Amino acid sequence: MKGSIFIVSAPSGAGKTTLCKMLIQSMPDIIHSISYTTRPPRPGEVDGKDYYFVKEDRFLEMVRKGEFLEWAEVHGNLYGTSKQKLLETINNGTDVILDIDVQGASQIRAQQIDATFIFILPPSMEVLKERLTKRQTDTEEIIQRRLQKAREEIKQYRSYDYVIINDELEVALEQLKAVVLSQRLKTEKIPHEWVEKTFQLQSLL
Amino acid sequence: MKGSIFIVSAPSGAGKTTLCKMLIQSMPDIIHSISYTTRPPRPGEVDGKDYYFVKEDRFLEMVRKGEFLEWAEVHGNLYGTSKQKLLETINNGTDVILDIDVQGASQIRAQQIDATFIFILPPSMEVLKERLTKRQTDTEEIIQRRLQKAREEIKQYRSYDYVIINDELEVALEQLKAVVLSQRLKTEKIPHEWVEKTFQLQSLL
Repeated sequence: MKGSIFIVSAPSGAGKTTLCKMLIQSMPDIIHSISYTTRPPRPGEVDGKDYYFVKEDRFLEMVRKGEFLEWAEVHGNLYGTSKQKLLETINNGTDVILDIDVQGASQIRAQQIDATFIFILPPSMEVLKERLTKRQTDTEEIIQRRLQKAREEIKQYRSYDYVIINDELEVALEQLKAVVLSQRLKTEKIPHEWVEKTFQLQSLL
Repeated sequence: MKGSIFIVSAPSGAGKTTLCKMLIQSMPDIIHSISYTTRPPRPGEVDGKDYYFVKEDRFLEMVRKGEFLEWAEVHGNLYGTSKQKLLETINNGTDVILDIDVQGASQIRAQQIDATFIFILPPSMEVLKERLTKRQTDTEEIIQRRLQKAREEIKQYRSYDYVIINDELEVALEQLKAVVLSQRLKTEKIPHEWVEKTFQLQSLL
């Protein structure tokens, strides 16, 4: 059975990273997509596990050849998702989750890849502000800019297939699991040959 | 939030009735659709709870007026699902499950009602035969006829949205719950006004 691709986006502070991590820990046969990056490995990071680490030349060559499903520059480093690696994984029957921003998601949508798009919303603007403030690392100005960016991103929620409101983490996790599980139950996932053989449908007039 | 309609079909012996009953007991805000019938009430059956009991004249009038989403004759009695009752229920925010055969499901599909179609499969022909034989009320000939009918019905599984293989009841129940829950998370279920207001999207340029 072929795996599915799940694209998960959310404004910063909605709890996307935590949710995706918990999902992968609690469900079999689903993994996090591994990105290509030009950023040098940090201590402990393993090539092919955390990222595929490549030189900028190689990365740009892949861009030119259209090998990325999406790519972006973040703080001077390039990050991208290889179409081929992704298709290999789902062809092996494993689901893949891509934890990605609205721009990346929109690049993927434009390529009409068969994927399930999930948007995580915070329960309210107040809670989002609270979560961003709790980090205590950011100034009021940065927080305001993040909130403004969050609203810009939330504006895009209608181009996603599913919306999960992350109020209580356990509830949101159950909902995310239900979306993933339900995709596995889609009729087109069942090999028709298996049904035909199991129920001897060929012999029917 | 508007409710959803779930159409569940399965060959006899696949465990559909048990699964639907367990689903309703274990999830909030989902009820079994109540059919109209011309069959007289059995002791203990309550009008408006088990069925809407009506005279044949009234039933046929409803058929003429196109008030049924689907209807059928079973052992000389008429059974039908009222379109209006169903829409009232989902407009009140409750999900409705229709436990219905492939013919009824196909009548509903033809009317392009927004519904989720779920097919329950037994894990194998052998298990299906075993389950039908266990009842011990039927002769070998009747069992053979039922198995043949089951195969005819299974042939239709590809017109359903989801397929659940009922091998272990608890697993199948979890899967059915995931399908129902995921429908509630569909983006179009979230009132857009709520999102706009909660995240002050109107004030964005």
